[in-house]
Amino acid sequence: MNLTNFFNPKSLAIVGASSNSKKLGWQIVSNVKESGYKGKIYPINLSSDKILGLKAYSSLTEIKEKIDVVLIVIPAKFVKAEVEKCVKLNIKNIVIISAGFKELNKEGAKLESEIFSLAKANNLNILGPNCLGFISNSNNLNLTFSKASLNKYESSHISLVSQSGAIGSAMLDWFAGSGLSLANFVSLGNKVDIAEDEIFDYLREDNDTKLVVAYLEEIGDGGKLRKSLSKLAKKKPVIMIKAGKSKAGAQMALSHTGSLAGSWEISKLAIESSGAILLDNLGQLFDVLKLWPSLKDKNLNKIFKNLSLMLISNAGGPLVIAADIIEQYNLSLSKWPKDIRQIKDYSLAIKLKNPLDILGDALASHYQIALEILISKTKEKVFILVFTPQSISEPEKTAKLICSLQKKYNDKLFIPVFIGGKSLKQAREIFELNSLSHYECLEPALFALAKYRDYFCSLKNLPEYRNHNSRENKLIIEGESKQLPYLESLSILESYKINIVKTRLVENKTELGKLKFPFVLKAVGENLIHKTEENAVRVNIRNLQEAKITYDKLKLLFKKGADKIIYQPFLENNLELIAGFKRDNKFGTIFMLGWGGIYTEIIKDVSWHLGYLNKSKTIEMLKSLQVYKLISGYRGKSYNQDAIIELMLNLSNLAKNNLEIKELDINPVFLSDKKAQAGDVRIIV
Amino acid sequence: MNLTNFFNPKSLAIVGASSNSKKLGWQIVSNVKESGYKGKIYPINLSSDKILGLKAYSSLTEIKEKIDVVLIVIPAKFVKAEVEKCVKLNIKNIVIISAGFKELNKEGAKLESEIFSLAKANNLNILGPNCLGFISNSNNLNLTFSKASLNKYESSHISLVSQSGAIGSAMLDWFAGSGLSLANFVSLGNKVDIAEDEIFDYLREDNDTKLVVAYLEEIGDGGKLRKSLSKLAKKKPVIMIKAGKSKAGAQMALSHTGSLAGSWEISKLAIESSGAILLDNLGQLFDVLKLWPSLKDKNLNKIFKNLSLMLISNAGGPLVIAADIIEQYNLSLSKWPKDIRQIKDYSLAIKLKNPLDILGDALASHYQIALEILISKTKEKVFILVFTPQSISEPEKTAKLICSLQKKYNDKLFIPVFIGGKSLKQAREIFELNSLSHYECLEPALFALAKYRDYFCSLKNLPEYRNHNSRENKLIIEGESKQLPYLESLSILESYKINIVKTRLVENKTELGKLKFPFVLKAVGENLIHKTEENAVRVNIRNLQEAKITYDKLKLLFKKGADKIIYQPFLENNLELIAGFKRDNKFGTIFMLGWGGIYTEIIKDVSWHLGYLNKSKTIEMLKSLQVYKLISGYRGKSYNQDAIIELMLNLSNLAKNNLEIKELDINPVFLSDKKAQAGDVRIIV
Repeated sequence: MNLTNFFNPKSLAIVGASSNSKKLGWQIVSNVKESGYKGKIYPINLSSDKILGLKAYSSLTEIKEKIDVVLIVIPAKFVKAEVEKCVKLNIKNIVIISAGFKELNKEGAKLESEIFSLAKANNLNILGPNCLGFISNSNNLNLTFSKASLNKYESSHISLVSQSGAIGSAMLDWFAGSGLSLANFVSLGNKVDIAEDEIFDYLREDNDTKLVVAYLEEIGDGGKLRKSLSKLAKKKPVIMIKAGKSKAGAQMALSHTGSLAGSWEISKLAIESSGAILLDNLGQLFDVLKLWPSLKDKNLNKIFKNLSLMLISNAGGPLVIAADIIEQYNLSLSKWPKDIRQIKDYSLAIKLKNPLDILGDALASHYQIALEILISKTKEKVFILVFTPQSISEPEKTAKLICSLQKKYNDKLFIPVFIGGKSLKQAREIFELNSLSHYECLEPALFALAKYRDYFCSLKNLPEYRNHNSRENKLIIEGESKQLPYLESLSILESYKINIVKTRLVENKTELGKLKFPFVLKAVGENLIHKTEENAVRVNIRNLQEAKITYDKLKLLFKKGADKIIYQPFLENNLELIAGFKRDNKFGTIFMLGWGGIYTEIIKDVSWHLGYLNKSKTIEMLKSLQVYKLISGYRGKSYNQDAIIELMLNLSNLAKNNLEIKELDINPVFLSDKKAQAGDVRIIV
Repeated sequence: MNLTNFFNPKSLAIVGASSNSKKLGWQIVSNVKESGYKGKIYPINLSSDKILGLKAYSSLTEIKEKIDVVLIVIPAKFVKAEVEKCVKLNIKNIVIISAGFKELNKEGAKLESEIFSLAKANNLNILGPNCLGFISNSNNLNLTFSKASLNKYESSHISLVSQSGAIGSAMLDWFAGSGLSLANFVSLGNKVDIAEDEIFDYLREDNDTKLVVAYLEEIGDGGKLRKSLSKLAKKKPVIMIKAGKSKAGAQMALSHTGSLAGSWEISKLAIESSGAILLDNLGQLFDVLKLWPSLKDKNLNKIFKNLSLMLISNAGGPLVIAADIIEQYNLSLSKWPKDIRQIKDYSLAIKLKNPLDILGDALASHYQIALEILISKTKEKVFILVFTPQSISEPEKTAKLICSLQKKYNDKLFIPVFIGGKSLKQAREIFELNSLSHYECLEPALFALAKYRDYFCSLKNLPEYRNHNSRENKLIIEGESKQLPYLESLSILESYKINIVKTRLVENKTELGKLKFPFVLKAVGENLIHKTEENAVRVNIRNLQEAKITYDKLKLLFKKGADKIIYQPFLENNLELIAGFKRDNKFGTIFMLGWGGIYTEIIKDVSWHLGYLNKSKTIEMLKSLQVYKLISGYRGKSYNQDAIIELMLNLSNLAKNNLEIKELDINPVFLSDKKAQAGDVRIIV
């Protein structure tokens, strides 16, 4: 799908244009005109000849010229007929503003699916329905019904994509209030045709876009999202809010791979592993965006790779708080340059270190002296300038000074944090006039820095996303599920070189005497689902008498679906892990590795990976576990890391070659200093 | 210490008053005059006759009238002489603004300790040195050198205590900017005499104070702090920031009781268990304070006990985000009243539920209709009114409506959250003119609500704090530490009815054959400090051959400080916990209970309690552990909760009666379904 023509139209028709200023159809024509759009505008209205000074037409068919984009803003029930007209007229690009589709009721959903069919059959590009429209700053085009009075300044190079119209309007209004002008705004609405992935593809190639902000409520095609998002994030920072976290909470109660990863966790994994910055709420988003005006023209790679901060403050108190926050966000302070042993013209008893407290009587000139010497003697890029209003301090003068120094040292990033209220109003206005990002508290400033740092640091490790097999996807959703027989399941593991604990069938009680103590007996069977709950696994059997009693007890479980009794040696001094994978119908295969046994559920020490594994990804999973401390060597004891890595890689191959397997759990994996062995397995096909 | 006279002076002398407007001594006299102070003011200056129109004196001794408070703002080296004059003149209340004491250098520290001695010897009340002074709204007295232009409106009933002068100034300025007038402001500075606890005692009885905000960097006397804070918090909400978290991080590496609790954790425990709301940074503080104007005249107990929220919004998107945040902060939504089946005059397709989406075309009147019907049909107290600017919405009209309805329904709490920017400026001004708390995002509004809720919910469980034994405190700091012998340590536990695992001394190798397998052998000795690292504990010895080899190996540790070999049976199927206490020289005795063995260090599943235990506190500690899930019954297996509770209570008695014990760790405590037994113990005296 190429959306270049869609977002850069030379002509527009507006079906439902109105001369009644209370109607959306009026607001849209007015916005298009107000924004200074240079293309042709064709308002369409059954009864008016002129709308806002433009010649109006009674129908699309009446227009003889070529139309690039048709916008439809009429009641839902009439929309389909207009789309059909577009098909006839060979118009490919349509924006449907009208609401009343699947978001309203079943009837609306039916209308929407008919439009979907029309779009697919005729290669249409449809944005909406139930959306606000879009804005393209480079085309001076505001094709929305938003009343936000947009800024016509230089573009901020931010493009904004919102699934929710209301959040979209609120963000447009926030941008207007911040004096920032958007590069593009796209309201997705019901996503009958154009979804987030197509917009991301378009924005990736859009030269006016240097930062993408997206608000999503639900993800359509997970594979497409990851593909488009990872390609986009490789080129420009993407900040995303994905609502819907709380719903997942309830789904996380059970222990196996399938239910440990709720849909929110998988979406989060997909978004973060694609390289986007995922935020929790609009407050965080506004905090991160506030830093952008100072960033937009800088070499961000240079600033954020190996980010370290230099802090200058006229007060010690905020520096104590800063230290806490710096640790919390895993930021680091620059070392104080050894060759600065005194600061000229500033002979007060200041302690030369970072953070630098230039004391409560610091004037604007003291900030200047400190800044200039640090700039001359170090290569540090980021300076946080904390100011609290004290008796002789100079808020406006200090603000002006910072603005002029920022212009002089354009490769540096100065972040003023002016903490206070009334006496700082003018200083804040000075920063805003100079488009210098500034904050009122340290926490949001450091949060924003940490988020951009996270993005730029993850860039080098971002893998090229390969779309998962479409056949795989199809298999996942098809058919009913069943559990494979126990011994068959183990032999599938073996055929992929996954060690299994020595396992044999116990045909009758007399065999027990020949087995080596201590051992484990279990009752298994495809229809025995909850082995643990049924107490079907008995460990550490140490003599024949115990063995016989246990055998009899397990035999009772044959009434509950068990059909075999299994022997395994009892392994002591092994670490118990859990490993597995599941298929998600949006995102494909997800691997899991965690601390096993009771710890899986109590501590939830589990790491996840979307997509097949390679060695470095597996190591990353392993290292993110708390139990890694034990594995890597703790109090003189360590475990074989290579063995568990190999097991995971074999498991990945197994998953790749057996698409019919929907879910597989090895629980426990026994890990010793020598090897990793599967103790038990459950395979669902 | 009674500070009533101190903070409500009828006469003031200002030593160091100046007619040079660049000096602090000028600023202070000017602030006192500007604030409308009705008492007598005596500026003292060697060379001027008049300062700011007031008769000036050359020395304190020259004033014949009674002076309630003397403020000193002259160079540090001259301060002591002035304090001595106060002693001679029987003036008890002194504010020392001057800096240059312990915060500067050793010489300053010496000066400060001399002033400390004078204060103690003569029952002086000294605020500072190195402070801003104080403000008392009810006395129209601004006795600080802050330049913040304070509001003279009605008091907000907030009193502010700040250790840091800079944070104090910044907060004063923030208050000025928010249109809030403080009840009291106290800058503590170096706390040579008056510390936070005395201020808390004063503010507890101050009728003008309904909310206390405190910023502390270090705590002086922990016992006094807890006493004053818990008494204060029982009467009014206290919001506190305690800086210095990050420093503690590094101290948390080791596993025993002593080092698991860094000083930050103990301070946090002390503050939170005293009932204060502890926040992380100024941003959070400002968010919480923003809600105060709407709260200050309401019955907060009614609102916050059983807090549940009703949300009304003209947009669905923010409600999806709200659901996430509501879950995160453990807030709850009110149930939709069953008898509201339709909303009159609002026939649109809105779904009747909470949160209520009144759709994008909602006018101010729709908010009114929805609010009024909900108020008439429910007893809900808190209404969050979310507004996003959309094409036909009415921000100013809606804001005015909310303000007037809030006046009409004064027992309800309306919190407008207007999300957006430019188009909402006037609406925000309307809220501010009406002193109605409002927010720009949902997250801070819900955060603030959750924090007040936390305070009011903890109120009923707040214990009366009893000061810990002063003899206890003295013992803690005195003398060197040493480890008690192993068997003696065990018998101390036994004498407090703490079960210990059967333990006997193995005098020689031949005894091994008489012992029951499987068992544990350990080498012990006062000088063998690191039993685990030296591999001095060998578990699960299953036969005589193994036993003999182990015995020989342990014998080798006699060269490293061991002097005995100990036998214990090997307990299987027990849960390993860790329990203990330590004495902190600021806060007294701290108890610890946690998941033992390797989990102590890897998972850090530990809970803490300050002060001696009772049953309900012990249950609280136990329930806050992750391992409680296992203890209380998991997959058909449970452990004896009463046994571990009893052990902790016995341990508390032991601690109470043996003040010479500085630290005690029982690691492991073996917990079975039947009993709790100490497996090993380490006592430091």
